[in-house]
Amino acid sequence: MPKPLHQQTASELAMQLLQLEVKAEQIVLSCLERITEREPHVQAWSHLAADAAIDRARELDRGAVQGLLHGLPVGVKDLFDTFDMPTTYGSPIYEKNQPAADASVVALCREQGAVIMGKTVTTEFATFNPGKTRNPCGLTHTPGGSSSGSAAAVADCMVPLAFASQTAASVIRPAAFCGIVGYKPSFGRINRAGVKPLSESLDTLGFLGRSVDDVALFAAAITSERDLFPFESPAELDDVPRIAMCQTHEWSHADADTQAAMQEAEKKLTQNGKSLSHLVLPELFAKLLQAQTEIMGFDLVRSLAHEWCNHADLISPALTAVLEAGMEISPERHRANLALAHQARMMVADAFGDADVILAPSTIGAAPDTLEQTGNPVFCRVWTLLGLPCVHIPFFKAQNGMPVGLQVVGRYGEDKQVLRAAKWLAFQLMPG
Amino acid sequence: MPKPLHQQTASELAMQLLQLEVKAEQIVLSCLERITEREPHVQAWSHLAADAAIDRARELDRGAVQGLLHGLPVGVKDLFDTFDMPTTYGSPIYEKNQPAADASVVALCREQGAVIMGKTVTTEFATFNPGKTRNPCGLTHTPGGSSSGSAAAVADCMVPLAFASQTAASVIRPAAFCGIVGYKPSFGRINRAGVKPLSESLDTLGFLGRSVDDVALFAAAITSERDLFPFESPAELDDVPRIAMCQTHEWSHADADTQAAMQEAEKKLTQNGKSLSHLVLPELFAKLLQAQTEIMGFDLVRSLAHEWCNHADLISPALTAVLEAGMEISPERHRANLALAHQARMMVADAFGDADVILAPSTIGAAPDTLEQTGNPVFCRVWTLLGLPCVHIPFFKAQNGMPVGLQVVGRYGEDKQVLRAAKWLAFQLMPG
Repeated sequence: MPKPLHQQTASELAMQLLQLEVKAEQIVLSCLERITEREPHVQAWSHLAADAAIDRARELDRGAVQGLLHGLPVGVKDLFDTFDMPTTYGSPIYEKNQPAADASVVALCREQGAVIMGKTVTTEFATFNPGKTRNPCGLTHTPGGSSSGSAAAVADCMVPLAFASQTAASVIRPAAFCGIVGYKPSFGRINRAGVKPLSESLDTLGFLGRSVDDVALFAAAITSERDLFPFESPAELDDVPRIAMCQTHEWSHADADTQAAMQEAEKKLTQNGKSLSHLVLPELFAKLLQAQTEIMGFDLVRSLAHEWCNHADLISPALTAVLEAGMEISPERHRANLALAHQARMMVADAFGDADVILAPSTIGAAPDTLEQTGNPVFCRVWTLLGLPCVHIPFFKAQNGMPVGLQVVGRYGEDKQVLRAAKWLAFQLMPG
Repeated sequence: MPKPLHQQTASELAMQLLQLEVKAEQIVLSCLERITEREPHVQAWSHLAADAAIDRARELDRGAVQGLLHGLPVGVKDLFDTFDMPTTYGSPIYEKNQPAADASVVALCREQGAVIMGKTVTTEFATFNPGKTRNPCGLTHTPGGSSSGSAAAVADCMVPLAFASQTAASVIRPAAFCGIVGYKPSFGRINRAGVKPLSESLDTLGFLGRSVDDVALFAAAITSERDLFPFESPAELDDVPRIAMCQTHEWSHADADTQAAMQEAEKKLTQNGKSLSHLVLPELFAKLLQAQTEIMGFDLVRSLAHEWCNHADLISPALTAVLEAGMEISPERHRANLALAHQARMMVADAFGDADVILAPSTIGAAPDTLEQTGNPVFCRVWTLLGLPCVHIPFFKAQNGMPVGLQVVGRYGEDKQVLRAAKWLAFQLMPG
């Protein structure tokens, strides 16, 4: 018996849609049924557009295939503007905000035939103050942030695909905590128009799905880079990627579960006497964690100037603290931080050595058993600042049964290689 | 007899406001009177907020000094969001658009005590389709674009300061055509949140005024970089800037007036036997003009995806042609263009040689005698792509009496040096 439609991946559904074996309407209805059942527990959505989604699916079913995402339900993080749905940016300041236009990627997504199911919960301005969403793998646990609703909705099979964005850790961390695949592209690869800006030098839009194929399909559709997808099946891959394990300068933060995930990966990848290299990043890179934090704070003060000047009373204490810290960073210090980041970016391709990709921790461990915070971003901040493409692969369980995984990191601009390597690694590491 | 208030520069007014010799209300009323008289001819404004400006000025007069822009009237390009005024982006698609928030720089401007006088006309999405504005120096001539209304309003003494933005030539060209000072900062120096994005790798916010002091004051207020202003008086400057004349690879486009302006500058700067160097940019830089054009086209297609997909009928034929050309640029070609730009950016500081700044053409000549187009951007595209700070100084008259000038270009991040050099050069070159 085949899996229910809502449990299938986007790539599986896309194939059936192309071959007219299934209708968009059936997929949308299956997802909506799942949402009805689970949303009271998970609370992934800030706005659900059920009727519009059904209408759109029927319209698509009547026409020719529009694009790579034809008939596929997509969740949109509520940091992204939508012309036909409210957009709150996770803040009470924007409780009734109705943008005039779609964010660029949302418009492109519709053009490729996707069905926008609604807006998914983001933390307050995609920073650290949690929304209402719970982790579908364990409802008392945080789903991670800031793309909390997108990750929970995909993990809980409410939609196969959802948009995310990362300024510190907001694509990779929620993917890790919810046990799905997250892809943060190289910096600058995805147009950000119409997505609430937090930090121009860090903000990166990304993609969530339940397989590497799915995030690659999603990215290929949005970027028109059709060679991102499909790739060969992993078994056929001639070029086994050269992988280096990298604990990073933040390794002391890794808990027992993340340490065990790294060991498990090493064990599986060195089976049959295969060798695996280990990489130590240059000493300079140890300074990047603080630099990223300061750059983000400095930029947030400016990006949220309107909100701070006019609605300070509606900004959470947590974000207020971030803004107040940001105000302490002088323009001179900010420029020094940017110069340090530039220096590291110039060095990092060489630092990879012989490796095609790095395998590194995504999070310090599994999702904390709390809804009061969204977890530690420490293992993502540096890669965000470096602008490197990252793919999270879920393959391991923590002691308490919650998902853990690792991220595959590539050289700048080598998004295709990183997606390929992630697919190969998922095949090697995932059980079954 | 002192000059009427609306004719005085922002720096002159700021001093009198600080010393309580003049009230904000008097300044605003003087500017409004000028606007009433001249707006029927110049048409610089898409929205004028006369009553709100008077109320705001009175409120400021009752309180303590808020910041560097206390009591100074400012015009805001209608590409920048304002929470209390409509924002059309120069397009009929957004005829009735009312944003929820101020652009970051507008909020910061208000925080510094400025009085926002209204929204100034921009070309359609700050590209090439002109708005209604005429050049105050000659009403049948284009004011240049895209910051047409901002440049015309400042040149015509309707406001002392106005915001601009440049993706190709939109700060420097209108400043040149209207005979005022324009400052395009180093790329990334000014937060762009809330300004309609066209090209993430090119868009740069900038400042217009009637003196170098004024644009420096304006920038210092917005960036919190207080050392940008004030500087010493030019006569006291110990360090005479080392200047290199640079014709650039686009020199064949320069008409007789621009050629004469370059000769005039050279003559004045070599008086009394002083020497002046001449700089030839590396051969690679000849490719940047086309690269900039293609990058802009590629990005525009994505940034305006919503408008293209939903309102193609309301996009002008001129912009449609730009978008259609942009669609022909493949992602691979786009990445190659960005890589070329990166390579040139890495080389350019060395290419300056011994010079502190370059003196180069701003435009091919004076403002064309037409309102059907906004003039040729060819002398600005490359500096925009390189992300270098540029200041236009007006000092010369074309054969037909219209203003012409040159731009001072500095190394990346050396905004302070470029402003200082521009002040020194303005002192040397300006008549009287």
